[in-house]
Amino acid sequence: MSFNTFGRVFRFTTWGESHGPALGAVVDGCPPGIALSEADIQPWLDKRRPGTSRFTTQRREPDAVRILSGVFDGRTTGTPISLMIENVDQRSKDYSDVAKAYRPGHADYAYDAKYGFRDFRGGGRSSARETAARVAAGAIARLVVPQVRVRAWVEAIGGDAIDPARFDDAQIDQNPFFCPDIAAASRWERLVDEARKSGSSLGAVIACEATGVPAGWGAPLYAKMDSELAAACMSINAVKGIEIGDGFAAAALSGEANADPMRPGAPETGGGPEFLANHAGGIAGGIATGQPITLRVAFKPTSSILTPVETIGPDGVATTIATKGRHDPCVGIRGVPVVEAMVALVLADQALLHRAQCG
Amino acid sequence: MSFNTFGRVFRFTTWGESHGPALGAVVDGCPPGIALSEADIQPWLDKRRPGTSRFTTQRREPDAVRILSGVFDGRTTGTPISLMIENVDQRSKDYSDVAKAYRPGHADYAYDAKYGFRDFRGGGRSSARETAARVAAGAIARLVVPQVRVRAWVEAIGGDAIDPARFDDAQIDQNPFFCPDIAAASRWERLVDEARKSGSSLGAVIACEATGVPAGWGAPLYAKMDSELAAACMSINAVKGIEIGDGFAAAALSGEANADPMRPGAPETGGGPEFLANHAGGIAGGIATGQPITLRVAFKPTSSILTPVETIGPDGVATTIATKGRHDPCVGIRGVPVVEAMVALVLADQALLHRAQCG
Amino acid sequence: MSFNTFGRVFRFTTWGESHGPALGAVVDGCPPGIALSEADIQPWLDKRRPGTSRFTTQRREPDAVRILSGVFDGRTTGTPISLMIENVDQRSKDYSDVAKAYRPGHADYAYDAKYGFRDFRGGGRSSARETAARVAAGAIARLVVPQVRVRAWVEAIGGDAIDPARFDDAQIDQNPFFCPDIAAASRWERLVDEARKSGSSLGAVIACEATGVPAGWGAPLYAKMDSELAAACMSINAVKGIEIGDGFAAAALSGEANADPMRPGAPETGGGPEFLANHAGGIAGGIATGQPITLRVAFKPTSSILTPVETIGPDGVATTIATKGRHDPCVGIRGVPVVEAMVALVLADQALLHRAQCG
Amino acid sequence: MSFNTFGRVFRFTTWGESHGPALGAVVDGCPPGIALSEADIQPWLDKRRPGTSRFTTQRREPDAVRILSGVFDGRTTGTPISLMIENVDQRSKDYSDVAKAYRPGHADYAYDAKYGFRDFRGGGRSSARETAARVAAGAIARLVVPQVRVRAWVEAIGGDAIDPARFDDAQIDQNPFFCPDIAAASRWERLVDEARKSGSSLGAVIACEATGVPAGWGAPLYAKMDSELAAACMSINAVKGIEIGDGFAAAALSGEANADPMRPGAPETGGGPEFLANHAGGIAGGIATGQPITLRVAFKPTSSILTPVETIGPDGVATTIATKGRHDPCVGIRGVPVVEAMVALVLADQALLHRAQCG
Repeated sequence: MSFNTFGRVFRFTTWGESHGPALGAVVDGCPPGIALSEADIQPWLDKRRPGTSRFTTQRREPDAVRILSGVFDGRTTGTPISLMIENVDQRSKDYSDVAKAYRPGHADYAYDAKYGFRDFRGGGRSSARETAARVAAGAIARLVVPQVRVRAWVEAIGGDAIDPARFDDAQIDQNPFFCPDIAAASRWERLVDEARKSGSSLGAVIACEATGVPAGWGAPLYAKMDSELAAACMSINAVKGIEIGDGFAAAALSGEANADPMRPGAPETGGGPEFLANHAGGIAGGIATGQPITLRVAFKPTSSILTPVETIGPDGVATTIATKGRHDPCVGIRGVPVVEAMVALVLADQALLHRAQCG
Repeated sequence: MSFNTFGRVFRFTTWGESHGPALGAVVDGCPPGIALSEADIQPWLDKRRPGTSRFTTQRREPDAVRILSGVFDGRTTGTPISLMIENVDQRSKDYSDVAKAYRPGHADYAYDAKYGFRDFRGGGRSSARETAARVAAGAIARLVVPQVRVRAWVEAIGGDAIDPARFDDAQIDQNPFFCPDIAAASRWERLVDEARKSGSSLGAVIACEATGVPAGWGAPLYAKMDSELAAACMSINAVKGIEIGDGFAAAALSGEANADPMRPGAPETGGGPEFLANHAGGIAGGIATGQPITLRVAFKPTSSILTPVETIGPDGVATTIATKGRHDPCVGIRGVPVVEAMVALVLADQALLHRAQCG
Repeated sequence: MSFNTFGRVFRFTTWGESHGPALGAVVDGCPPGIALSEADIQPWLDKRRPGTSRFTTQRREPDAVRILSGVFDGRTTGTPISLMIENVDQRSKDYSDVAKAYRPGHADYAYDAKYGFRDFRGGGRSSARETAARVAAGAIARLVVPQVRVRAWVEAIGGDAIDPARFDDAQIDQNPFFCPDIAAASRWERLVDEARKSGSSLGAVIACEATGVPAGWGAPLYAKMDSELAAACMSINAVKGIEIGDGFAAAALSGEANADPMRPGAPETGGGPEFLANHAGGIAGGIATGQPITLRVAFKPTSSILTPVETIGPDGVATTIATKGRHDPCVGIRGVPVVEAMVALVLADQALLHRAQCG
Repeated sequence: MSFNTFGRVFRFTTWGESHGPALGAVVDGCPPGIALSEADIQPWLDKRRPGTSRFTTQRREPDAVRILSGVFDGRTTGTPISLMIENVDQRSKDYSDVAKAYRPGHADYAYDAKYGFRDFRGGGRSSARETAARVAAGAIARLVVPQVRVRAWVEAIGGDAIDPARFDDAQIDQNPFFCPDIAAASRWERLVDEARKSGSSLGAVIACEATGVPAGWGAPLYAKMDSELAAACMSINAVKGIEIGDGFAAAALSGEANADPMRPGAPETGGGPEFLANHAGGIAGGIATGQPITLRVAFKPTSSILTPVETIGPDGVATTIATKGRHDPCVGIRGVPVVEAMVALVLADQALLHRAQCG
């Protein structure tokens, strides 16, 4: 795994910039014989697509994916699957001021410090547009582990959290916030609208659950399931935190309160234990326990805001910058399908790794 | 990077079980010509060593490290450095009941589910004893990036946090809790003593700061500095959460409140910008900004407690287990040198990676 | 390095099938700031292009390369460079009989045995068309190590070798055989013509030399320069042998005859030694000595011949197959730019690896 | 796979120098539940052990292996297996002159050029003693693929080859040359004796055959079975050439002469085809065909000879060196168990890789 490639056995490599002609992913190590066409991938891209509501960036991209290799007669062949998405709505002129001033919180200064110069159009490689390639790859990962269901939602925006008691899975796809609590969704509508209108932005917490992961997947020590999930999620733009199960809350508990007791499972469950709690988020010692895998991811607010912020330019001279381009008032919202994709990609990889070693 | 190896260019591989004859690490890719002897490693192992206060496990291990290869005439040769630490104080009989019942929260059930059987003596490979090998490897990593200072401390135990206003770096090594707040240290003494006496356990939050990391280290997209740090820390036993900079708190902020404005730096700082805040924890777009890198890690409470917990055995039959063996009432405490080691190991790897690509 | 990716720090991933819409490569880890446009790549592709003489396959492909990412303002940005070449002249119907019978010597049976089915159009992923992607990536590798000159030629066709005494570098690009011996080139014209007309095929030996490689590149033990070159060349279609320096001939020598004595080098050469011989092919202990790196690669004859050969089909039933499609009577010829590309790719990777560890 | 680690899923890392306290290997990714003790490894080390006849180095090493981790109750646990072999008979004074003059053909100069200095005692890390660690790891690899039989022998010494018509498998272990032709063995006795007495050395060709490899193992394109075998064998000390199947001889053949026709296999063979020839060495398109895998490896003569050779020292001053230390007159002989080990290690890795992707 290196640089722009993720995974050990089921691997994907992404490429492309915000304002280049296209972006894409190469998925390598996919098992053969899996039915696959663009129709299996497009719905996930549509879920992530910009411009679908007023709460996301107004850049209009069809994000139509093409499969360029690795599929024959409608099935994967076991050879690399090349996925390409053309960029359509790049307006390079919007970003001309970014060339002259580093946007604080963005990768502008850091890229220049590393590489000596940068593609400043829309953030170049550091743009969240790259996540479209991940979502496309993630759609294939889902097909590799069809027994698993990966489901994410927004748990909080700008510090306003859902009420767990009001959690309703059916609501998640019924509002533009992927929000399982109808009351919170309605509050967020005002909150995000306000941020959008004032040129401000908001952070968010995304929760994700993967069910159907069999006990035994995962691999100690440096390929631990939690470690891989953390790397995967932390590689997403704007993510600054990740916790598995109770995470930081567990650090405040006693051993008794944090225990996940076990009982013999019902015969029809195949002999696995019944767990009485899931503080550990379905992973013990880096290996899945068979419980749902649960995690939460913190997205910082978009750094692009209308309020001028002190900064410097590549020439080292002081200036200020106010970002007027099209962007998401809350990037966390569109992070939902991206977190799902990354979790699916880790699980597909871990499934194959487990099969390699343990048959 | 796979399984029991971590890193891309500066890599280490660990081996060994809690109750085997020894444990160790092989460090590969270390630059040549670095002065190195056991005396450079031992102090860090001593910092992590069990049995140094009543607040840690009473297992008595000298944890004396031997360098078996890769050093000649007192300097690293560029070839693999093999480190070995003998296990001395294994009392296998203490763990006989573990063979018959899975300890909830431990890796017992998951290892059996994965591998079909397990070395149940002291947790085998899943024991926190393995972290001694990391600390030894981390001591070498520090020498690879001597311009960097990595420093960790305990920020909270059992939900009782330090007062940031009372932070005193000089205190950290003056108490058995690596606590920078003398008042908190004194509260924790009672707290941990109580947990120890009642056979309970407590979670903890560890904070870590790395200063001296030059702008430019780190590598988008799947070798992002935050992603590597997350993977590294999440691979430590009992860790369930990691955040960079403000982490989860940033998710509740607006873009304005989360901004890290920049000004032209003082000439004597070499031309880098002066940052007016560090919400991002010193990393933007996965690349170091030159600010201190800051992160926080959540350790769950040790799952070994005296209170009997419902569980099952390898035979699937219901039972209960109460863990009487020697263990830490708060594993987070001894996690301090381990977090430091993992952060140093990531930074050494990123330093070499950066040099590879950007000269 | 795994499956369809090659390299450790300077890495490339290829994708695409003979009869898919396109093929390509993603080059990752390229240093930033290198001037790069399609014009730097196209000449090497033209050198490999089919249909340029009657001695190669008559498939007509422009092999026009597009750079889809990783370049801004004419320079590499340090992010992944995506290269795409569209397939234009696929005649799928030519290959319909291949679906029903395994071509001996081709990957047909092995792919079916591995994957359960295969893309039989033109050999699918196992087609030598994939090497176009390598040549494109190799053109970038050359720019990463501009101090190095990589040069290959055909040394023998069908067992008829050049006369080393007649070696003339200037001849290599003057004939369709990349032959440095004008007399051999004229003999090969008849030889290959005969094979082509009779529907037969011929093997070839390619020699390659890399000059300008500084002493010190290479990395013991499992990234030895010879080991990487062997892996790289052996991954090329139809290659069945590789030797470094004197190779198999050295196995028949005594230690005295095989010695590469050294003398102090002339001051103007920068203090490196002068070597009096180069049996070792410029590599000792896996590390470059500063001498030219020399190697030879054996290409088997194309397995596609007009003479019917006994075989079976996917149904297990006996049949015979005679291959009438368009193909090279001697694949080794077009192997010349491919060997050059693979050697350049290894050297670029080793250059960056060396810089990582040894500064 | 990097530096001192080999393999993708079944991986091993070696460490240690000729004159350090010990050397070893860490085997990672081994499937759990395999019966393993030192007794499974020691016979292979004994086969490679120095000092067993007058035709090998007179260094006396028991090469007793210890398993330090990864085995419990006599079975592999799935966690890393640490193997250690102590060095007993290091006579460092023998090598003092090597500090002052580079031995041509050895890694001395190249290591200094790379690392700035070197462990000159017995060649340090570049010594063939490192291969003991490979042989130990290879013994475990054999247990991972018990259906496979890997068998190597010496095919030629100093250019004097066996007569294929006299090949007798039973002879291989009956003479100190691993020679399957009793007449050649007797000639080699004189040949090697003469080289030994005169302080000269001889090259050798080793042949190796792996039977029982099922069709389907191997993975295009850069993990091709031939590519992995080439990398593995070329990483062995003194190896300068590798060919699969007919190798370089195939380059002189026509397509007709090189064909491997197929017929329907006998029902009792499980439906696989019967092959009428094996020019390809059991690999097509990088994937095993089910035929025996055959390869040949060229070992150069030991560079350590009594005849003084011109050279320079680290100070750049001209001198000569004659190597008087203990060494093999023909390193190829003891290369037999090493080639076997490397082939077994590749096959174990490929077996697990195949299982990962193709179930």
